[in-house]
Amino acid sequence: MSPTLTSFVKGAQDSCFPIQNLPYGIFRPTPEQIPRPGVAIGDYVLDLSAVSRAGLFKGPLLHSSDCFLHPTLNQFMSLGRPAWKEARETIQKLLSVDDPTLQDNVDLEATVFVPMSQVKMELPAAIGDYTDFYSSKEHATNLGIMFRGKENALPVNWLHLPIGYHGRSSSIVVSGTDLVRPRGQTAPGKDGLPAYKASQLVDFELEMAVFVGPGNEMGSPVSVEDAHDQIFGFVLMNDWSARDLQKWEYVPLGPFLGKNFGTTISPWVVTMEALEPFICKAPEQDPAPLAYLQDSKRVTFDIPLKVALKPEGGKESVITQSNFKNLYWTVAQQIAHHTVNGCNLRPGDLLASGTISGPEEGSYGSMVELSWSGSREVKLENGGVRKFIEDGDEVIMTACCKGDGYCIGFGPCSGKILPPRPE
Amino acid sequence: MSPTLTSFVKGAQDSCFPIQNLPYGIFRPTPEQIPRPGVAIGDYVLDLSAVSRAGLFKGPLLHSSDCFLHPTLNQFMSLGRPAWKEARETIQKLLSVDDPTLQDNVDLEATVFVPMSQVKMELPAAIGDYTDFYSSKEHATNLGIMFRGKENALPVNWLHLPIGYHGRSSSIVVSGTDLVRPRGQTAPGKDGLPAYKASQLVDFELEMAVFVGPGNEMGSPVSVEDAHDQIFGFVLMNDWSARDLQKWEYVPLGPFLGKNFGTTISPWVVTMEALEPFICKAPEQDPAPLAYLQDSKRVTFDIPLKVALKPEGGKESVITQSNFKNLYWTVAQQIAHHTVNGCNLRPGDLLASGTISGPEEGSYGSMVELSWSGSREVKLENGGVRKFIEDGDEVIMTACCKGDGYCIGFGPCSGKILPPRPE
Repeated sequence: MSPTLTSFVKGAQDSCFPIQNLPYGIFRPTPEQIPRPGVAIGDYVLDLSAVSRAGLFKGPLLHSSDCFLHPTLNQFMSLGRPAWKEARETIQKLLSVDDPTLQDNVDLEATVFVPMSQVKMELPAAIGDYTDFYSSKEHATNLGIMFRGKENALPVNWLHLPIGYHGRSSSIVVSGTDLVRPRGQTAPGKDGLPAYKASQLVDFELEMAVFVGPGNEMGSPVSVEDAHDQIFGFVLMNDWSARDLQKWEYVPLGPFLGKNFGTTISPWVVTMEALEPFICKAPEQDPAPLAYLQDSKRVTFDIPLKVALKPEGGKESVITQSNFKNLYWTVAQQIAHHTVNGCNLRPGDLLASGTISGPEEGSYGSMVELSWSGSREVKLENGGVRKFIEDGDEVIMTACCKGDGYCIGFGPCSGKILPPRPE
Repeated sequence: MSPTLTSFVKGAQDSCFPIQNLPYGIFRPTPEQIPRPGVAIGDYVLDLSAVSRAGLFKGPLLHSSDCFLHPTLNQFMSLGRPAWKEARETIQKLLSVDDPTLQDNVDLEATVFVPMSQVKMELPAAIGDYTDFYSSKEHATNLGIMFRGKENALPVNWLHLPIGYHGRSSSIVVSGTDLVRPRGQTAPGKDGLPAYKASQLVDFELEMAVFVGPGNEMGSPVSVEDAHDQIFGFVLMNDWSARDLQKWEYVPLGPFLGKNFGTTISPWVVTMEALEPFICKAPEQDPAPLAYLQDSKRVTFDIPLKVALKPEGGKESVITQSNFKNLYWTVAQQIAHHTVNGCNLRPGDLLASGTISGPEEGSYGSMVELSWSGSREVKLENGGVRKFIEDGDEVIMTACCKGDGYCIGFGPCSGKILPPRPE
């Protein structure tokens, strides 16, 4: 991809969504209209249903496909990389300064472009299953030290397999959706009895997640080499957590109500093609994993991540900065492990990374780490402090990969915690 | 419901599917035809799409609904109990000996009835989320004794909340689907290294599961009193487990690959209305749970359960007999707990009970309990023995509630374990 490739859409090249990005999402042009696929370009959304209806997808794989007339991206995701590449080439050509098709046709232009400021974003796909991994060694170590002490920080299996668990699909929401502080059961206090109350320890978790492409048949594992072709693209994710509910419930079957009150993702799915220039080496693994987890390529992506906290009516403070490349287990390894027993993935399934913490204090991916289990204060601008998330706080995650003369941005993944409902 | 209510369908009253039952399922009349809703009656399936097209649903809630023209029951499930009651009344009338509509109309009869022997059953619903609880005190105690010793058998939280975790929706299959023995990673042996191999400890788990009806909005819990109206009906479930994979992976985030290679359910959803005559008291709870889990009704269902094992080419041996009423936590409590933090349930979600063990050895709901972690042999007829499930073994679960002159049966929940695929 040439860095000099530019779009005729005004301002696009200086935005998070230049012609080198072209992330996919599902949007409504107005809140009343039905959802449809679109691509972000500068301050506009290119309506792919309109582009498709105008007969502009002329490649062999897409010219007779109705994938852009669906209210989700599942169908498009299921088609696989050749179709994704064909779509990208078509869209990139249509948006380029060198192509007259859209820029010289006022009527068509008015039909296919919608100002981003007026659209309502929806979830990119109907998410059949959502899996959350636990692939940051720094995060797992930090939590281990807090809960079990320095000696037994990492669980004994951690270095041998990418630990994961099933999350809740129904409560995944798109960026901008407010969440009510959850109530629930917490561990016994001095009276020896568990309590029912609003969570006092609401936390964020900085994660990224991939949407699965074609998927696999039940009983047929995906090898680590083939796993790359299963990845449609990435979003940012806030895996909201209620630490007090989680602590009391999670032994022996794992997190449940401490997590499933809500999970926020960013609306624009940044594709593997857009991220190609940011491929980098993944961390070395010691001990070497079993053969089915060994990846000759062993690559990941250099994606700088940032989390800001904005109190009600206040100012944003950046509270942590991390990077996707910190993760010990790669997405390819996660997919190979997930399917090694024959478990089937379906188009539109979501695989999340787990909290992405870096090695330094300023790069931890959750409040429980930043405040070291509430033992120290996280300082905000204008003098405020936090140990966990308070009512009215908005948590805003962003990511931006700096390329040669352009940025690949993800758009915000944000959500606000509202007070618990009166009973 | 009168026990003298009878159907004109020959043999129905002596079958598992008399007019008092009327379970819903999704079927294809032939493997090529599209799936549609049906009701089991004797050896026939009543095609509800044909009944609907013939204009025979005339009640106020269903006369203009297209819920029976969908390829899943999700739409019908979403309508709630008044619509479910209306549908049942209509179907019961149409099938009764006293009604001429179907039995005196040869053409219509030929259109709406399909012999059960020729249909292909599908999953009853598109299952958005599948949750598995752990609500048998006997099962949790047995596993606790085996894994942690008698002193700490029950986890400390077990008596205070119905422990549950998220399962995998994609690998839920309908009865009759063969499953391949899973491969995966197992705990380090004497060499200190984990191994990759075919599971040696494949197990069944005898469970039941409910399909959720209307569901709830995110942020709005369902009270234990209102929970009853969320239950559309019950199926049998075999929560297949690979104990060696599970043991190595499940700390700290719960079971994953040890479970998600496959979960089998019976195809016919037996409704709450059909099970009404079998309502009974649920076990007393000590200590009393927190107020949000207290149910003034505190009822459950008396559903006798049976598991048979059939070796390849061999004879069925009944290996355990249990009862749904053994469960400590009721479905109403599970729903109240699941939603107390605001987590939303959607129509067609599946909530499973966890393994249903009774107090006696002959009533344990899994091989790991029956063989006490492989320390003793489970005897089969014709001299065979088992500690876990072997290749070619079919596990067949059945349930039958004996009413006054009729049975409410569930039809089998069966599945066979095939040898692992060659690599």
